[in-house]
Amino acid sequence: MDRKYDVITLGEILLRLSTPINGRLAQGDTLMKHLGGAELNIASEIGQLGLKTAMISKIPNNLLAAFIKNQMNASRVSENYLISDTADDSRIGVYYYEYGSYPRKPRVVYDRKHSSINNIDIKDVPETMFYNTRLFHTSGITLGLGGNAQKFAIECIRKFKEQGTLISFDVNYRANLWTGEEARACIEQILPYVDIFFCSEDTARLTFGKTGTIEEIQKSFCEEYPISVVASTERTVITPKKHNFTSIIYSAKNDSYYREEPYNNIDVVDRIGSGDAYVSGALYGYLKHKDCRKALEYGNAMAAIKHSVIGDMITTDLEEIDSIIAEHKNTGYHSEMNR
Amino acid sequence: MDRKYDVITLGEILLRLSTPINGRLAQGDTLMKHLGGAELNIASEIGQLGLKTAMISKIPNNLLAAFIKNQMNASRVSENYLISDTADDSRIGVYYYEYGSYPRKPRVVYDRKHSSINNIDIKDVPETMFYNTRLFHTSGITLGLGGNAQKFAIECIRKFKEQGTLISFDVNYRANLWTGEEARACIEQILPYVDIFFCSEDTARLTFGKTGTIEEIQKSFCEEYPISVVASTERTVITPKKHNFTSIIYSAKNDSYYREEPYNNIDVVDRIGSGDAYVSGALYGYLKHKDCRKALEYGNAMAAIKHSVIGDMITTDLEEIDSIIAEHKNTGYHSEMNR
Amino acid sequence: MDRKYDVITLGEILLRLSTPINGRLAQGDTLMKHLGGAELNIASEIGQLGLKTAMISKIPNNLLAAFIKNQMNASRVSENYLISDTADDSRIGVYYYEYGSYPRKPRVVYDRKHSSINNIDIKDVPETMFYNTRLFHTSGITLGLGGNAQKFAIECIRKFKEQGTLISFDVNYRANLWTGEEARACIEQILPYVDIFFCSEDTARLTFGKTGTIEEIQKSFCEEYPISVVASTERTVITPKKHNFTSIIYSAKNDSYYREEPYNNIDVVDRIGSGDAYVSGALYGYLKHKDCRKALEYGNAMAAIKHSVIGDMITTDLEEIDSIIAEHKNTGYHSEMNR
Amino acid sequence: MDRKYDVITLGEILLRLSTPINGRLAQGDTLMKHLGGAELNIASEIGQLGLKTAMISKIPNNLLAAFIKNQMNASRVSENYLISDTADDSRIGVYYYEYGSYPRKPRVVYDRKHSSINNIDIKDVPETMFYNTRLFHTSGITLGLGGNAQKFAIECIRKFKEQGTLISFDVNYRANLWTGEEARACIEQILPYVDIFFCSEDTARLTFGKTGTIEEIQKSFCEEYPISVVASTERTVITPKKHNFTSIIYSAKNDSYYREEPYNNIDVVDRIGSGDAYVSGALYGYLKHKDCRKALEYGNAMAAIKHSVIGDMITTDLEEIDSIIAEHKNTGYHSEMNR
Amino acid sequence: MDRKYDVITLGEILLRLSTPINGRLAQGDTLMKHLGGAELNIASEIGQLGLKTAMISKIPNNLLAAFIKNQMNASRVSENYLISDTADDSRIGVYYYEYGSYPRKPRVVYDRKHSSINNIDIKDVPETMFYNTRLFHTSGITLGLGGNAQKFAIECIRKFKEQGTLISFDVNYRANLWTGEEARACIEQILPYVDIFFCSEDTARLTFGKTGTIEEIQKSFCEEYPISVVASTERTVITPKKHNFTSIIYSAKNDSYYREEPYNNIDVVDRIGSGDAYVSGALYGYLKHKDCRKALEYGNAMAAIKHSVIGDMITTDLEEIDSIIAEHKNTGYHSEMNR
Amino acid sequence: MDRKYDVITLGEILLRLSTPINGRLAQGDTLMKHLGGAELNIASEIGQLGLKTAMISKIPNNLLAAFIKNQMNASRVSENYLISDTADDSRIGVYYYEYGSYPRKPRVVYDRKHSSINNIDIKDVPETMFYNTRLFHTSGITLGLGGNAQKFAIECIRKFKEQGTLISFDVNYRANLWTGEEARACIEQILPYVDIFFCSEDTARLTFGKTGTIEEIQKSFCEEYPISVVASTERTVITPKKHNFTSIIYSAKNDSYYREEPYNNIDVVDRIGSGDAYVSGALYGYLKHKDCRKALEYGNAMAAIKHSVIGDMITTDLEEIDSIIAEHKNTGYHSEMNR
Repeated sequence: MDRKYDVITLGEILLRLSTPINGRLAQGDTLMKHLGGAELNIASEIGQLGLKTAMISKIPNNLLAAFIKNQMNASRVSENYLISDTADDSRIGVYYYEYGSYPRKPRVVYDRKHSSINNIDIKDVPETMFYNTRLFHTSGITLGLGGNAQKFAIECIRKFKEQGTLISFDVNYRANLWTGEEARACIEQILPYVDIFFCSEDTARLTFGKTGTIEEIQKSFCEEYPISVVASTERTVITPKKHNFTSIIYSAKNDSYYREEPYNNIDVVDRIGSGDAYVSGALYGYLKHKDCRKALEYGNAMAAIKHSVIGDMITTDLEEIDSIIAEHKNTGYHSEMNR
Repeated sequence: MDRKYDVITLGEILLRLSTPINGRLAQGDTLMKHLGGAELNIASEIGQLGLKTAMISKIPNNLLAAFIKNQMNASRVSENYLISDTADDSRIGVYYYEYGSYPRKPRVVYDRKHSSINNIDIKDVPETMFYNTRLFHTSGITLGLGGNAQKFAIECIRKFKEQGTLISFDVNYRANLWTGEEARACIEQILPYVDIFFCSEDTARLTFGKTGTIEEIQKSFCEEYPISVVASTERTVITPKKHNFTSIIYSAKNDSYYREEPYNNIDVVDRIGSGDAYVSGALYGYLKHKDCRKALEYGNAMAAIKHSVIGDMITTDLEEIDSIIAEHKNTGYHSEMNR
Repeated sequence: MDRKYDVITLGEILLRLSTPINGRLAQGDTLMKHLGGAELNIASEIGQLGLKTAMISKIPNNLLAAFIKNQMNASRVSENYLISDTADDSRIGVYYYEYGSYPRKPRVVYDRKHSSINNIDIKDVPETMFYNTRLFHTSGITLGLGGNAQKFAIECIRKFKEQGTLISFDVNYRANLWTGEEARACIEQILPYVDIFFCSEDTARLTFGKTGTIEEIQKSFCEEYPISVVASTERTVITPKKHNFTSIIYSAKNDSYYREEPYNNIDVVDRIGSGDAYVSGALYGYLKHKDCRKALEYGNAMAAIKHSVIGDMITTDLEEIDSIIAEHKNTGYHSEMNR
Repeated sequence: MDRKYDVITLGEILLRLSTPINGRLAQGDTLMKHLGGAELNIASEIGQLGLKTAMISKIPNNLLAAFIKNQMNASRVSENYLISDTADDSRIGVYYYEYGSYPRKPRVVYDRKHSSINNIDIKDVPETMFYNTRLFHTSGITLGLGGNAQKFAIECIRKFKEQGTLISFDVNYRANLWTGEEARACIEQILPYVDIFFCSEDTARLTFGKTGTIEEIQKSFCEEYPISVVASTERTVITPKKHNFTSIIYSAKNDSYYREEPYNNIDVVDRIGSGDAYVSGALYGYLKHKDCRKALEYGNAMAAIKHSVIGDMITTDLEEIDSIIAEHKNTGYHSEMNR
Repeated sequence: MDRKYDVITLGEILLRLSTPINGRLAQGDTLMKHLGGAELNIASEIGQLGLKTAMISKIPNNLLAAFIKNQMNASRVSENYLISDTADDSRIGVYYYEYGSYPRKPRVVYDRKHSSINNIDIKDVPETMFYNTRLFHTSGITLGLGGNAQKFAIECIRKFKEQGTLISFDVNYRANLWTGEEARACIEQILPYVDIFFCSEDTARLTFGKTGTIEEIQKSFCEEYPISVVASTERTVITPKKHNFTSIIYSAKNDSYYREEPYNNIDVVDRIGSGDAYVSGALYGYLKHKDCRKALEYGNAMAAIKHSVIGDMITTDLEEIDSIIAEHKNTGYHSEMNR
Repeated sequence: MDRKYDVITLGEILLRLSTPINGRLAQGDTLMKHLGGAELNIASEIGQLGLKTAMISKIPNNLLAAFIKNQMNASRVSENYLISDTADDSRIGVYYYEYGSYPRKPRVVYDRKHSSINNIDIKDVPETMFYNTRLFHTSGITLGLGGNAQKFAIECIRKFKEQGTLISFDVNYRANLWTGEEARACIEQILPYVDIFFCSEDTARLTFGKTGTIEEIQKSFCEEYPISVVASTERTVITPKKHNFTSIIYSAKNDSYYREEPYNNIDVVDRIGSGDAYVSGALYGYLKHKDCRKALEYGNAMAAIKHSVIGDMITTDLEEIDSIIAEHKNTGYHSEMNR
């Protein structure tokens, strides 16, 4: 397969404005400025691990575009399919984030309506794009935006699939975008195209009405649809600042389940984006090594390490992730640094 | 006159997100968080000088509402007429600001479309409001928003006028909101209701097609419309970080012009909002002392001091402004502090 | 009862100067600037929950007065009974605070002697004040200042009581202000006036010589004095950064005890002011709902959430506290945010 | 002369709490923490230039003492004569400082009453101290504190003089400490002991009633009193952020005046302490080189460079000052760095 | 010409550690972290203007490599020719920078000896590189490093030239790297290969012993060597914080001189790198438009705007530079922003 | 014994550049600036506890020298034996530090090759130095630098020993400096001179091939060499942010072991330097009280408290450490502050 990109993602790029840790939106006079958005996180993280990635999105043609493009390039995501919105009311979606500290929960305010991605149109992208990547990924957030974005996403899925591209999809259910029924109805439309499916146990139960063990649930998706791989993260919240994290992956091809010991007592600095980091690691492992065990290990390691930094995505490289995996397989963890 | 408020303003409240001084939007990881909006600035500053003020606006019912209300209360602006927008797509308008440094200009990105004020409706406010203040103020920015906001503003002007309320209006022309012709057509509709009119010489010429000296221009407005007072600021930009500032006020009643020596060599830290500070000082002087000379002095002093702080509005009090006026009338300026 | 305020508190307003977290007073070049003082914290927090509050205090007539007044207004505390000290040696009390980190303890340096409140005089306040509130609150800190402040506080208690005002008192024993015997002697003078009494188990034993269970102790206060309600907080320090917190309230009227499950594993960002937050929640619950169970729930929730922010007082609103209470009654806690 | 110190100063050590530049005391949540006090500035700066210095002062025995002592040691000022105040109401004087920006003036709030130095007593210091230095310096600020501090200062002057120590005195008139008449009466008491006298032209005229040219004024002091050297700074304020600075020194011994070209267009970052820096440079030049020309050059250079940093005192060393002097004598100034 | 890159530069990448503005290296506890190095600045800035660039350098294989690569990618510089130094003593050169404020000069401490670039070897780069770009640029700094770096640079010049690549060279004389004579001897070796030559008037006189007017000097270089274009910047330092800047370019081909009005009263935030920004603009203009007038305009505009930001290089884009040029040709400058 | 210093240490002074907590070297634009180096940490901390200390090192003669000297003086370490390196390629060693957060490990990048200490020569120091202290301390880091530094260190040990000075040595094995065999061979050369030996159990086993219990290991060192005291720290890492810490000391003289309860659940803010803090406390206790129990208690307390602050060394004083010891012996720990 001679395609330019390993992964192309589609989704909304958001400006994330968060309070300093321990601060509140109602107080203070500074905000931290980051980029976010599930599919951007994933493209950036896979790019940092060394695969070639690009992202399809639509952003306003203003000063913030330079911020977005610089960051994408910094993490090796091609801006070739970034569409510039020159309309008068073009805007970048924003979300405001306030860190929690038990018993005060983290809180998020979304201001993403009317953003440029909602005007995206299939004519905005070149036909060549559809046979230019090994894998296409999007999520339930993009579908949940509804309207043009949903329509565009579904069309992309079909067109990429026609070109023999692997289709990856993460349900990523957000109650503030749509109801469970809306989500189910829409996602069931695209499941026939999906090869790699990310769905948490809770969502499988609540949104798709699944029952039984997680293993049964995963298998049932592959029985209903021509899905090859189902991955489900498993998070245990010990305290808001200590989580355990692992996942289970089911491969339909060899009818096997993949598991490993959880990363226990993860220091949670910033939990946002850890699910996306999981997807990025899993897709990297799957594409690079064609091995669900590698998908599992990279997925868990990326998710675990993501918790340790502020912002939606981790800045890392393959060497670091490999050493985290090696350490994890070895003895759990070691506190001390090498010097 | 026994009214609860001295001044009620109407306008949009904006979240202002600015880079650190010398920073760029395309770089860095922090933004400064302030509130802005011409009519909020004015209500806050008049409130700080000791008159009773309130503001009519519509804001989303989210975590940022607490930030807005706390700040309004801190500067003694009543939140009684602040309307809470509980709609799903409610949002606060945002503007991003990057400071300039010659030859790099300051730059601003507005993201105010679809904000909550655009859904404002005359039924959102109680009828009692209209006879509850001595003066009502709004600006060409509010009219320039068009749609419901414009309609609401015009209705407010009529209803306040009916109750014998003084009407104050600042043209505040913004090319990114509407064309000069649109502005002129709309503003000429409301000029018959206006008592105190703020209009710069440039705008008078470019938008209203006025000719002649500034004195002739000011007088002509009072001849065409039943305007009592016309105030025009006069700014000289020596360098982007050094301005001179003064103003000229015409009183139709006694057919007199009021002037004073400019504040020269103002240290420009942040120029945004200095025009609003002028309006606030002028309205304070006019309402408190019923004297255009006082309007001039307070207006110029408030405008001058505004340049010295970061953010849309100054934090000050009457005692400080009085001492600045005294100093200014005395000898220009004195560099040293009292100790 | 038609009184303007729900709560008036009396106490000293302090400028709190704290190091950055992990910093030391002996190092570094910045300090964080907050306001503090038990009774200010309480008035602010009750004000934020929606009741009308004012505070009696005396502050110097200098630039810091604006800081104080802005913050009071921001949290809806009336400055009507704030007395301006124009004396030459007027000053605001200061305390310096350094965060601890085991085994390094938090440390505090008080510099509150000779502050303006020590010159407070009953003639500084209008007679009308005494029949203008439903409840008056002060604490053992104010009495412990001694001299004029103590005399003023005792006089206030008497005068408010004469007007049928509820009297609330928090022992808040501070060894650096007075000895246990001095405290006991003084407080026993005012207990005959007190309706709502806050006293921890330790203080009851050490200062008042009480014995028996906490339930017996609480009841004994109501037997000796015409106290209606006794509230005692119960804190377990697991580590300096993890506390459990709950309380027990005794109502003499129906001879009942109120308790609930503790908030466990509270993330302690800043422990200062959590006792005051308890008082504010308890008084809010009591006044708003006339129900000791509500006093308990609001008290515990306010105390618990206070630990999560830097500074003497929390910035919050009723909606947030209600959701924390609901969450707490439900399942302990949930780590994830709503989105 | 075999004395341990070159210079011992006497004065109050103040904690300086300043807003960030462009910030206001009424806003924001951080303050910068520095030490200040004229005589500390002088001892520190002379210490940095390489002479041995110590300072007599009295400070509270609390956590801030470590901050003070660390800073003194960092600038090579001996803490041998620093007296620890263990009294209950011991306190360090504080001053709050807000930077100005035309037309907003810098503002200062002093909170120095009741500070530990006001309890200083001659018994606090060892008799050996009086023959242990070549020069003793204090200022009109210490005398202006009145009470014990004034009494102590006058006694020190007498005792040091008895031991053949040079006495240096800077009038440093502060209207917020005493009236001009009080200052004159007190200072005239100690002038018979003074060898090196710092007095600005304005103060000479206003406080001492001098007339004539600055040269005549300087000479007249030496005619009335056995003063050897009189130094007067000359500052021209072009704008609050641009000053010119030079000085004139009169030597009675050879009846000569010393002058040099002013440092023109000094970038004023922080003007506080530039007068003290002048004294430190002048005393250094005088003691090290026994030459009034050197006193002039070091004084002017130290004053000029002080304006360039935040805080009461400059951090520098002899090499830097020598290069500034060389540059200044050469061509005025050069913008570029050496690389 | 079908080459992959428009510009390849060769030079050392430095970690720049600067104090906060107004801070000193001897004080404080933070440093700002940037990348620097003349040839990196140039590649980054040309990359931002839209041409394809790469940089040849050698950097240590440690955590800082990720910082360097992310930044290069962010500004669109290919890391393809970045050589990783895995030696034990590999290191990145560092320079410490302290901002000046008259009369305190900016100061710089270089710690670049033994850095990885000093081990660079012609075998580190592929032969294909030499016919893969339209233009190769390096500077006297790289030659001044001596040893392997110098040898490598000279070899690169020869090899690129052999492939018909344009050779650009900026003298950029640094006295702390070599003497004028050493510089002259070495540079005269490579001048026969140079097409575009950057040399200031001062350097031409002091290092190359040129006399006559700047026009005569520029022409003489083209007469002695087969140089096509000579560009010389002209800077006037009004104060350290106000500079004027322009340049003069001589084209040998049409024997013409190009000049324009200086950018006057530039606000100097950070002067470092403005010379490199000039080179980047000039090379961009020359390569894109094949026009020395464009080289002049882009060079001057890039240099002027560079002064306005902190760090070695500007973050910008073509649209901004075009608008600065348009503004400059129009009326000098305009203080106000567009809104 | 009449010697000027209690302790002289020898080692490299490093500039420590660390990310903000939770930050990464590959991101962000600030670094924290501290000094580090095992032997500097020890001299500073013993100096703060009240003994007289000096340090032998060699540092470049540039702007950073002032930073180093100011900090040394601030913590009462004499700079008398600090050697100034005026060579062209003089440099201060640097280390970059990134905090970890499980599962992301802390990471360190050393850049200490070619630093000034590597040119140190016995002729740089005066002969008088060798009989001017009670105790000399250095570590395996200094020996591991190899070359001149190693040679100098061994010579110092011999010369100090000749003068009857106590020799203290901490193995402090660093794999990035030398191999275990190199370390063993070198250290065995100097063990015959050592009086006080610091060696962890792990190092004893891995580097020196010891077997048996820690007690047996400690004793065996004293049997093989004329060592008086062996101290070994014992650290248990619960999580990277929670450690337990204690130590065991063996005194050959009275053939006794000293132990105490560990400090449990230490809040680990910054673990770097805690081993050095142990050495400083142990040496202080030993020198001041001539008692291994005191060495143990001060060592453990200093190590424990070091974890609570950012940077290589703690800022503290004897009073604080004494209160930590008292608290520790009493009841483990107490969360609350004294007020």
